[in-house]
Amino acid sequence: MFAKVLIANRGEIAVRIIRACRELGIQTVAIYSEADRYALHTELADEAVCIGPARATDSYLNQQQILSAAILTGAEAIHPGFGFLSENSRFATMCEECRLTFIGPSAETIELMGNKINARTEMKKAGVPVIPGSEGLLETSDEALEVAQAIGFPIMLKAAAGGGGKGIRKVMDASELASQFKAAQQEALAAFDNGQMYLEKIIYPARHIEVQILGDKSGNIIHLGERDCSLQRQNQKVLEEAPAPNLPQPLREELGQAAVKAAQAVCYENAGTIEFLVDEANEFYFMEMNTRIQVEHPVTEMVTQIDLVKEQLRLAYGHELRVTQAQVSFQGHAIECRINAEDPSFNFSPVPGTLDHVYLPAGGMGIRVDSAVYNGYYIPPYYDSMIAKIIVHGKTRLEALAKMQRALAELVVEGVATNHEFQQDLISNTNVIAGTYDTSFLQETFLPDWQQEDNE
Amino acid sequence: MFAKVLIANRGEIAVRIIRACRELGIQTVAIYSEADRYALHTELADEAVCIGPARATDSYLNQQQILSAAILTGAEAIHPGFGFLSENSRFATMCEECRLTFIGPSAETIELMGNKINARTEMKKAGVPVIPGSEGLLETSDEALEVAQAIGFPIMLKAAAGGGGKGIRKVMDASELASQFKAAQQEALAAFDNGQMYLEKIIYPARHIEVQILGDKSGNIIHLGERDCSLQRQNQKVLEEAPAPNLPQPLREELGQAAVKAAQAVCYENAGTIEFLVDEANEFYFMEMNTRIQVEHPVTEMVTQIDLVKEQLRLAYGHELRVTQAQVSFQGHAIECRINAEDPSFNFSPVPGTLDHVYLPAGGMGIRVDSAVYNGYYIPPYYDSMIAKIIVHGKTRLEALAKMQRALAELVVEGVATNHEFQQDLISNTNVIAGTYDTSFLQETFLPDWQQEDNE
Repeated sequence: MFAKVLIANRGEIAVRIIRACRELGIQTVAIYSEADRYALHTELADEAVCIGPARATDSYLNQQQILSAAILTGAEAIHPGFGFLSENSRFATMCEECRLTFIGPSAETIELMGNKINARTEMKKAGVPVIPGSEGLLETSDEALEVAQAIGFPIMLKAAAGGGGKGIRKVMDASELASQFKAAQQEALAAFDNGQMYLEKIIYPARHIEVQILGDKSGNIIHLGERDCSLQRQNQKVLEEAPAPNLPQPLREELGQAAVKAAQAVCYENAGTIEFLVDEANEFYFMEMNTRIQVEHPVTEMVTQIDLVKEQLRLAYGHELRVTQAQVSFQGHAIECRINAEDPSFNFSPVPGTLDHVYLPAGGMGIRVDSAVYNGYYIPPYYDSMIAKIIVHGKTRLEALAKMQRALAELVVEGVATNHEFQQDLISNTNVIAGTYDTSFLQETFLPDWQQEDNE
Repeated sequence: MFAKVLIANRGEIAVRIIRACRELGIQTVAIYSEADRYALHTELADEAVCIGPARATDSYLNQQQILSAAILTGAEAIHPGFGFLSENSRFATMCEECRLTFIGPSAETIELMGNKINARTEMKKAGVPVIPGSEGLLETSDEALEVAQAIGFPIMLKAAAGGGGKGIRKVMDASELASQFKAAQQEALAAFDNGQMYLEKIIYPARHIEVQILGDKSGNIIHLGERDCSLQRQNQKVLEEAPAPNLPQPLREELGQAAVKAAQAVCYENAGTIEFLVDEANEFYFMEMNTRIQVEHPVTEMVTQIDLVKEQLRLAYGHELRVTQAQVSFQGHAIECRINAEDPSFNFSPVPGTLDHVYLPAGGMGIRVDSAVYNGYYIPPYYDSMIAKIIVHGKTRLEALAKMQRALAELVVEGVATNHEFQQDLISNTNVIAGTYDTSFLQETFLPDWQQEDNE
């Protein structure tokens, strides 16, 4: 196994990775920005290297500095976590060039799946159903109009290099298309330095269901079941669960098989996720592949008892998968709630500040809190607003819901505004309890009601 | 299910029970002494009733006050936790008389198993092997001498009503017997108002292995496997694990069957534990039965995925067992470390004080911290010194050990002395890692070395 790994991230995922390394006897190197001198990941790692000023572009995205830190500390591998450089194929290539193992798939796979047009083409070729839409690159708005009229409005215009909701436009009818095409393309150019566009039919109503994948260097690929991540606000996941509620068992199996087929098509190595949309008729469509560990990976860990970060480390080192598909078993139900330092009354805008008092409800059976905060911690304004993930596991979905309600009732965060109360109300909502929600539910049904009640 | 339960305890076990109740939708009533006004159990319960001054005899042992609190708040049942009134048959009887369900076995069973002489007799009758020793009550030291000479010295003199190490004397040879008999009897009279004595051969070297039992009101009894609790200091458990390491599988099964037989013999209802000594030849002997939930119950929960406190509530309400013996399955390995506010350099004497800073390492997979402390919490001098239980679960014993080492490395407790470093050294000891330890190991081998190193 690796003797030393550098963790090119911060926050709870950096802490999560440090913990996995420590349990495997791997020495850890943290990197930190000047704003993160007292961060938990900086404290917990065996070594910590300051790699630049607070701004992410100067630190956590500073590839040269990170590679230098790895080389100087004698790390053999780099775990990128999620966000930052985790899906940057250039960084993965640079790691290889520096004889450092990038813990993730190959640079080629990241590159291929990162371009959404190429990913679509590849999946279609592999026989994985994709959302009806354009073939290849759309050069002009006229080309877009032709495709849109063939599949029918409304459609979604998307940037090939897309991510974080940028370069995306919903187009209701032909009259809007030309202007929206131009706007989206300009946004994509500005954000990704890449103005390639494509379009897809809008699948609505739909559920966001994704499948966790693990692959080794010998070409063995297994799936670890699905997660339902339909509860989203502005394309950001808010609450995730495994398994997906109210899903016919044959569909569950089909999704797993389709995900394996998708991963096989690109010779996928390490951990990854295939995201699907599932419509009312239980037809499913490939949406995209995330070539990294995801925020919501713990719900899969809870139901499979497989430590995904440890598996990432083992697979990157070259070990083969330790379980076959038949050996993967699923127990009970897991739910994750993201607790963010954000102010719901100001459109959920992130709020930096000092946590005067924190009580994380991590006691009792089947509760886990992954977090990098502590009493007195200052949340810097530069990064993601997520401060904790509460993950529960129960024998049944109802038990898991009860555990989450209990955990949220115990949680104390003083000093900054959070979405704590919002999550409490969400987990008590009848649609959430019944498991009858789609990707529009939170934003279009729950949130307006919630904000209205809040104002009364 | 019960609508409302009063928890007649404090500290982490009270919090543990409140959590289980909340997850089952049961309203909770906490009781608290004047010293526990800001305790976590007082904060977390739906209602909290102050039942007297700090001293336990005036509050947590004040039966009348506790019953009044239950009646006044409309509680239907009382959960006694461990310690305090949990093995007080008179209190169980008084609960019945007040039409309150005592969450535990019947008063008769508590009474029977509480008298160690009667328990020995009952077990022998049921065919459960007991430690060679006296039959019934020893009236005089001459009677004791006769038995001791028949079974051979050294022997252990014990008070029938014993508990907490009181009324117990090790007797090496005949010359010591008369004086030790007198001393032990006087101590027992003072402590328990009961001077009944018996004696047992000293089984040495031996392991302390106990079996968790669950029984319902229909007479169904199952066991949930064993725990090894051999790591003890002055008869106090320090670190516990499940399953017991290096135990032949047939012996494991025999212990389970013997425990079920023991429980059946006394028509046992609810959760209980049969404690055995296992000698070098793998012969085992009944030691005693604990007619309550135990501190170390979480290790069994981790390997069986059965929530013992929830089962206690269900069984006390009258539900039947939900699983048969064949349905109980065991997964992986669990270890518990008790973190106490005590000063190892002053013979582990308890130290009250304020916790200036606490970081409980409850994140990541397979880690659970059951605790009732928080940042700024004041540990009162009146009660038990345990401030947290760290429980880990791994696929293998080695993984669990690595997790515990990782968790202990992350733990921060500032403001009071603790056994934190002692536990870190213990979990890294080669005998502990190999699982080759007996009940004398900690006190006679590990501790002298440890204290010497500490002094150097």
